[in-house]
Amino acid sequence: MRAAIVGSTGYGGVELIRLLASHPQVTVTSVISSSAAGTPIAEGFPHLTEIRTDLLDGVDPELIRSKADVVFLATPHGVSMKLAPQFLAAGLKVIDLSGDYRLKDGESYREWYKHEPAVQADVDNAIYGLCEVFGSEVADKSFISNPGCYATTAALALYPAVQAGWIDPDSIIIDAKSGVSGAGRGLSLGNHFSEINENFKTYKVNKHQHTPEIEQTLSRAAGRPVTLTFTPHLVPMTRGIMCSSYAKLTEKRTDADFVELYRKFYEGRPFVRVRPVGQWPATKEVWGSNYCDIGFSVDSRTGRVTVFSVIDNLVKGAAGQAIQNLNLMMGWDETWGLRFTPAYP
Amino acid sequence: MRAAIVGSTGYGGVELIRLLASHPQVTVTSVISSSAAGTPIAEGFPHLTEIRTDLLDGVDPELIRSKADVVFLATPHGVSMKLAPQFLAAGLKVIDLSGDYRLKDGESYREWYKHEPAVQADVDNAIYGLCEVFGSEVADKSFISNPGCYATTAALALYPAVQAGWIDPDSIIIDAKSGVSGAGRGLSLGNHFSEINENFKTYKVNKHQHTPEIEQTLSRAAGRPVTLTFTPHLVPMTRGIMCSSYAKLTEKRTDADFVELYRKFYEGRPFVRVRPVGQWPATKEVWGSNYCDIGFSVDSRTGRVTVFSVIDNLVKGAAGQAIQNLNLMMGWDETWGLRFTPAYP
Amino acid sequence: MRAAIVGSTGYGGVELIRLLASHPQVTVTSVISSSAAGTPIAEGFPHLTEIRTDLLDGVDPELIRSKADVVFLATPHGVSMKLAPQFLAAGLKVIDLSGDYRLKDGESYREWYKHEPAVQADVDNAIYGLCEVFGSEVADKSFISNPGCYATTAALALYPAVQAGWIDPDSIIIDAKSGVSGAGRGLSLGNHFSEINENFKTYKVNKHQHTPEIEQTLSRAAGRPVTLTFTPHLVPMTRGIMCSSYAKLTEKRTDADFVELYRKFYEGRPFVRVRPVGQWPATKEVWGSNYCDIGFSVDSRTGRVTVFSVIDNLVKGAAGQAIQNLNLMMGWDETWGLRFTPAYP
Amino acid sequence: MRAAIVGSTGYGGVELIRLLASHPQVTVTSVISSSAAGTPIAEGFPHLTEIRTDLLDGVDPELIRSKADVVFLATPHGVSMKLAPQFLAAGLKVIDLSGDYRLKDGESYREWYKHEPAVQADVDNAIYGLCEVFGSEVADKSFISNPGCYATTAALALYPAVQAGWIDPDSIIIDAKSGVSGAGRGLSLGNHFSEINENFKTYKVNKHQHTPEIEQTLSRAAGRPVTLTFTPHLVPMTRGIMCSSYAKLTEKRTDADFVELYRKFYEGRPFVRVRPVGQWPATKEVWGSNYCDIGFSVDSRTGRVTVFSVIDNLVKGAAGQAIQNLNLMMGWDETWGLRFTPAYP
Repeated sequence: MRAAIVGSTGYGGVELIRLLASHPQVTVTSVISSSAAGTPIAEGFPHLTEIRTDLLDGVDPELIRSKADVVFLATPHGVSMKLAPQFLAAGLKVIDLSGDYRLKDGESYREWYKHEPAVQADVDNAIYGLCEVFGSEVADKSFISNPGCYATTAALALYPAVQAGWIDPDSIIIDAKSGVSGAGRGLSLGNHFSEINENFKTYKVNKHQHTPEIEQTLSRAAGRPVTLTFTPHLVPMTRGIMCSSYAKLTEKRTDADFVELYRKFYEGRPFVRVRPVGQWPATKEVWGSNYCDIGFSVDSRTGRVTVFSVIDNLVKGAAGQAIQNLNLMMGWDETWGLRFTPAYP
Repeated sequence: MRAAIVGSTGYGGVELIRLLASHPQVTVTSVISSSAAGTPIAEGFPHLTEIRTDLLDGVDPELIRSKADVVFLATPHGVSMKLAPQFLAAGLKVIDLSGDYRLKDGESYREWYKHEPAVQADVDNAIYGLCEVFGSEVADKSFISNPGCYATTAALALYPAVQAGWIDPDSIIIDAKSGVSGAGRGLSLGNHFSEINENFKTYKVNKHQHTPEIEQTLSRAAGRPVTLTFTPHLVPMTRGIMCSSYAKLTEKRTDADFVELYRKFYEGRPFVRVRPVGQWPATKEVWGSNYCDIGFSVDSRTGRVTVFSVIDNLVKGAAGQAIQNLNLMMGWDETWGLRFTPAYP
Repeated sequence: MRAAIVGSTGYGGVELIRLLASHPQVTVTSVISSSAAGTPIAEGFPHLTEIRTDLLDGVDPELIRSKADVVFLATPHGVSMKLAPQFLAAGLKVIDLSGDYRLKDGESYREWYKHEPAVQADVDNAIYGLCEVFGSEVADKSFISNPGCYATTAALALYPAVQAGWIDPDSIIIDAKSGVSGAGRGLSLGNHFSEINENFKTYKVNKHQHTPEIEQTLSRAAGRPVTLTFTPHLVPMTRGIMCSSYAKLTEKRTDADFVELYRKFYEGRPFVRVRPVGQWPATKEVWGSNYCDIGFSVDSRTGRVTVFSVIDNLVKGAAGQAIQNLNLMMGWDETWGLRFTPAYP
Repeated sequence: MRAAIVGSTGYGGVELIRLLASHPQVTVTSVISSSAAGTPIAEGFPHLTEIRTDLLDGVDPELIRSKADVVFLATPHGVSMKLAPQFLAAGLKVIDLSGDYRLKDGESYREWYKHEPAVQADVDNAIYGLCEVFGSEVADKSFISNPGCYATTAALALYPAVQAGWIDPDSIIIDAKSGVSGAGRGLSLGNHFSEINENFKTYKVNKHQHTPEIEQTLSRAAGRPVTLTFTPHLVPMTRGIMCSSYAKLTEKRTDADFVELYRKFYEGRPFVRVRPVGQWPATKEVWGSNYCDIGFSVDSRTGRVTVFSVIDNLVKGAAGQAIQNLNLMMGWDETWGLRFTPAYP
């Protein structure tokens, strides 16, 4: 299968290139950038020297259609909604890594993204590809909205417990910590080395656009609207997200109960690793891989459970899950192009 | 005034040396180490070359008494309880930076520290020196128990709101993040560079010994026993703690209400900086200084407030607050030896 | 082919596991540790959860022989010389990642390693596997001494120029910088996070054991004994080595001359990437991969050339080159198990 | 004395504020920024909350003259040469932290800075304030050109040996490594966290503008023109510079000889610490302080000496040395405002 990547000068784009290089059925035939078209991709990313010697293509749906069967949109929100309809109209399969098609409710999109929503028919058409939860909806589809990095980490940590009714959805507090690569390659004081190194900070408190995305997913689990607290923080590292998610137990449970519930829920899904009782995952333990690792701590003193979940934000939180969605879409082995052991240390 | 520092080969000890060098009334006359007595302190800490040329003394209360008036115990828990009574008996003032005298309830100490508690009479005698809250109890005393780093960060963030009845104490969740220097200079895989760098992890979940210390303080604020959730995490940086503290509002309040309440509570206390509405502190903004900075976010969607508080764990969380306690004890200006502008970047 | 890894609780060992997982012809059938035999390898390395569920074997040549055809010794120097003869005697192929068999002159080993050398007959028998230079000697052999990380970085940067007579061997100064993982997983103050982070330092100045190893290789290039200056430094990062190598030109040359000379020398070798004129490689551009990237700067003012070379110390500097040696030994495609695009960022 | 700081929104400017806060004779009466005039300085630098509550002034020499006696120019090169003459004409003392007045030869400035040089009469008038070498020239002067960060580190390491004729000036190679704060607060991909973290790279090879500055200083030491090799590298840390300087010995010397020579040369200068034989300084050992620490390694095998020197680039390499120059200019104690123990760890 021939794949094109739009946004190949960003971190999501080059991560797709890295992962797809090991995919047995996919060849990246076009790397696309509106800003750097005509220049070699290895110029801006010298790590690709001799690996990719081709020039960046411009955004030209007809051209792309002649070269590719599926297109990955590793573009910012607001941009994807302009491109996706063109590529879909050109008969390509589209996997969108932006937030443009994640929220089914346009009003919510407008409120949290501070931007006009995409055409509702397209939004309705896009499958929300949280693979381990809604993966069965992806098969044979042509248009996937790839979940957000925080949203993936949080939803995988909480979906089984909410669905089982083991925790009170109204009590959920998600304290999230992310490496800096999630903010992309664009320049800002908030990404500047001397400002981030040896520093820990929060941002967009109670305003982050992944909040309604997590709520949308957990509302499906609960069967009723869920409102929760989500707080992102920035860690002085490049890759990795941890969500520490807190909730009230609805009745007494043990760590072992949670491990059992989650192992059953994620049975047969190779990329979620439910850790044994008493073991909590660290972000480095999934670095460079498509895993989401989950651990638990029930506190009998407070009647709360804390769920720790970690991913690599550029893999399971972006490029990796996008490829996983392609695999599910095509009916392929879910792990193709994704069999990376975490790089440790 | 002449000061001795026990534990001068640890990070708390050398930080006391750094800060006291600028104190107008205190001279460090003895640096003490049981393990390295007789060797120059600059041998283990070359940054002190030509600054301190003296040899480390052994732990000898009689000798110390001849050289010093006050002794800082920058020693691990379990060790302080052996030394403090000897130094007190020798007529020295004692400021203990360990956890040995913080918990008034011996049973609680036994449970959380997994160690026999100190003699109860000594525990009763020790003043818990959380300066901005209990500072008035410190004056003229001889024995101070210096609060823990996490406990300081969390208690300063929550005390005013709990005391005012603005938040439900039973709903408190404290998600804490710390730099690695808090774990000291002792060697362990958990402090090893390659294991920590580009990694984010949690530890001692629902088991950290600062939990009952925070509960003890907030119970005084609430006028009744408080049980809460406290989770420590490790950030790949050397210094700095942030607590993100979550609680249910008891009635509707705004960010501005919180800023006003806290500014009133901390009026006249130079080391707590209550940030303006919409501004959340980052750890680097207090690096190397004795400040505790606090910011708020009320979320009307969930009826919760999040309080962000940051300190430098080695200063306000250890050596700095210890010196502040000495200043209060002696009736001196609270800021002597502590007038450091944060080092930024 | 069945492979065993001795030293599977160190960074070199787990890196072999990561890389070999993608090798089309090799299966790791035994992971071996003298210190942790009988425990699951994923206990000490949770990133291997569900990837390797087996228990660590003890060091037992007869057992290993029944399970494996080749053994990788990711063991410290002094240990390899005890194990290699046993495994060779048991009929296994051996690839040793330690320094024990690199120096052909026992006296030199004694001087630089401060340790008795291995049996000379074994030393003579071991092929020094610097693949891009001496790769042709590896085919069909049974015992390979894998080059050191610094030695690989420096020798690949200098061999072509020395051999061509373009630089004066007596003028060579190699200023080397390494990430901390090169020091292994053992605990020491020099690996302690708070001591390394936000710090840059040197160590073993004029005493590092890779000095004679580089000299031995470049002496072969020069056809006469070479003595040079080599200085290692420690960078606050986990992986990566850069050597900045300085030498006097023997006659006027340009950057373009060097690019041409090196491209010719390394023609057909997939893992050395000679960068175009004016481009110098950064360590992150080879992170996680087996590449060695090389760039040049001729300075007409001083008549010197500076050669910059970078590798990932755990891949090309250890596990990767070891696998490359296995491939060459077996007559396989040199890139099997090593087709990793660098992970960027 | 009243001081004004131009460029108060950069790292050099805020470091001057941090250090001068402890100066017994200087009060910062005006903080100046052309880009942010009229806004509170604490808005862009929240670490100054409650420490500096004033608004930024614009660049107005008449206004500044009414508020200040000395002005520090923490401005980029090209800007200082526009401002310095105005402030001098207004009767203010001027200490310029940029490169505009360092090179006495305008042609050299043009070549290395790719910019027209300042007026030659002003250049001639500016005293090059390398305090420990040319400090005696500073007294009573009104216009100081503060040395560059790399130039300070390298020159202090080599001046005594060159002057004594112990090393061959033509053999000098300076391999320099710097933290990222030296590049300032301006945004560029080269300062972006995800590009720098876990990365080591070089830049401006054989083109860095501190090269002729070092040559100018060492030429004075040698009594003849010196040409040398200088290579800057970027370390993933915020503060700190190390120069590893290599040179041929003119005759046999020992480490002890060098220690003695340098201790004599720097006798009475509090900020240069010549380390004992066998001890090499690390950058963290001077972090936040005005020290320059120096160590040696003579190699009898090669007949070379390596000199290691470290500074904090924002202190001794910028703001600290500027204040030291003010102290020398005014005939004050050299250490006023600079008595900071390095912050370790």
